[in-house]
Amino acid sequence: SFSSMDPQIGRPRFTDFPHLSAPHRDLMVQLVSTVETRLSSHLLPSSLPPDVEYYQNETASSQGTLHIRSAHPDSPVDFILGSWLYCTTPTGSLNVTTLTAYLNSKTDAPRLLMEFLQTGPTSMILILDLPPRRDMVLHKDYLQHYYVDPNLDHLRQRLQILPEVQPYFASSLYIRCALSPAAVSVVISCRAPDRMEEIMRDQVSSVAKEMLEIWLERCARGGVEFGEGEREVLEKRDRLIKESTVEIDLRSSLPRLFGEEVGSRVIGAIKEAFKL
Amino acid sequence: SFSSMDPQIGRPRFTDFPHLSAPHRDLMVQLVSTVETRLSSHLLPSSLPPDVEYYQNETASSQGTLHIRSAHPDSPVDFILGSWLYCTTPTGSLNVTTLTAYLNSKTDAPRLLMEFLQTGPTSMILILDLPPRRDMVLHKDYLQHYYVDPNLDHLRQRLQILPEVQPYFASSLYIRCALSPAAVSVVISCRAPDRMEEIMRDQVSSVAKEMLEIWLERCARGGVEFGEGEREVLEKRDRLIKESTVEIDLRSSLPRLFGEEVGSRVIGAIKEAFKL
Repeated sequence: SFSSMDPQIGRPRFTDFPHLSAPHRDLMVQLVSTVETRLSSHLLPSSLPPDVEYYQNETASSQGTLHIRSAHPDSPVDFILGSWLYCTTPTGSLNVTTLTAYLNSKTDAPRLLMEFLQTGPTSMILILDLPPRRDMVLHKDYLQHYYVDPNLDHLRQRLQILPEVQPYFASSLYIRCALSPAAVSVVISCRAPDRMEEIMRDQVSSVAKEMLEIWLERCARGGVEFGEGEREVLEKRDRLIKESTVEIDLRSSLPRLFGEEVGSRVIGAIKEAFKL
Repeated sequence: SFSSMDPQIGRPRFTDFPHLSAPHRDLMVQLVSTVETRLSSHLLPSSLPPDVEYYQNETASSQGTLHIRSAHPDSPVDFILGSWLYCTTPTGSLNVTTLTAYLNSKTDAPRLLMEFLQTGPTSMILILDLPPRRDMVLHKDYLQHYYVDPNLDHLRQRLQILPEVQPYFASSLYIRCALSPAAVSVVISCRAPDRMEEIMRDQVSSVAKEMLEIWLERCARGGVEFGEGEREVLEKRDRLIKESTVEIDLRSSLPRLFGEEVGSRVIGAIKEAFKL
């Protein structure tokens, strides 16, 4: 069970999600718990230092947690990475919650990406995807197996029919390239916070859980046979994605929100997991 | 100048666009004329037989034209392909107008794709893109040069701000994979036909012309240095796209709309241009 505070040092843990609405917190706890239970035989304990597991800026107006668990060397899982950020700004608050999983080159299966970016109680950018690790124009069988056969696009469609939901186009074209064609990439804009909570509980929750289930069943088990040179292309592709995540997502935000020292420390820990 | 009928046989030509609204016809005539003028030193005359240049079903409720001009062997242009289809159905009419250009493996530059799919006088699916010929997750410099530097996404944004314009998700995930992250892929839904004509004249026209200009300046001139094995990957990728265009776009529609014999004849001519 998750306590709301670490009793030893009185600061929130990753799985506390202290700044989320109840339905959102319930969802995150269930997603993290599902991944860690189902992959329990793969995952090693976290080895992050405490000042990376939880960090804040000088005035504590920005808070963040990082949660990384690497996997055994014989697992197709490389590591799982979860985090939340909470920042109060003059105009409101920013709340970013992430759950991702990376696979190694024992498999070419898609990775897992779940990102909830709240810019206020009535507005959220939601990205749920199994980002591909192959060029699917060249590898149609890959598209068929991981996206068409499990009807991943149906999950996107279930959210898209809500009047509060609009497609979201990331400002970075590279980030758009990295997503699958069935990615849930949407903005949810509600008139009132309770409607946002309702959508989280009634629609987003089931879509996120079903996508996670597809990933656990179809991707996290690994298995692939590579042609000559294909593993090298896969590893290069994976590395470029990780480098871009650091450059586009992290370097542009963490030092600004937490100061240079804290930002560098957290980015350093992520780069270590990324083997960059 | 374009006559409205071929005087010898009394049937419409490709550049007549007899079933389009005036602003839409003007746009198509200008796009085709711009491509053919600017590439005039590259392009050979059309060599299609008359029964492929214009075709119809038995009752003439479906009509179509095909326009293909191959290029000189030393040009980076492979060929340009234009077409329009007009079909009356019990519930209304379908009007598909296309202008595409394919490059050969002297260059890896993006090709040109412009498709206007009208399901009625107030509703249109519009796809304008420079579809990439590389995996841009691997080739970030390609993304930078052809999409970021000319700010292609700005064209998409200019249409997207109109309240009548919504993002369009092709039902085929493969077709979505083949588009660039800056593709204009939208549905335009208007309350009245004159508003559709207004949008065609005031917004779509300039967006399409600017995209064509970027393609003519940046892509159609060719030029690339390939690493070892890269040309083979490019040629394989191009071939897969062409095969999918035949399978997904053509085989599912032309025989149904025009009968098996006419459909096969037209698909055969396109496959010949595609070298399939």
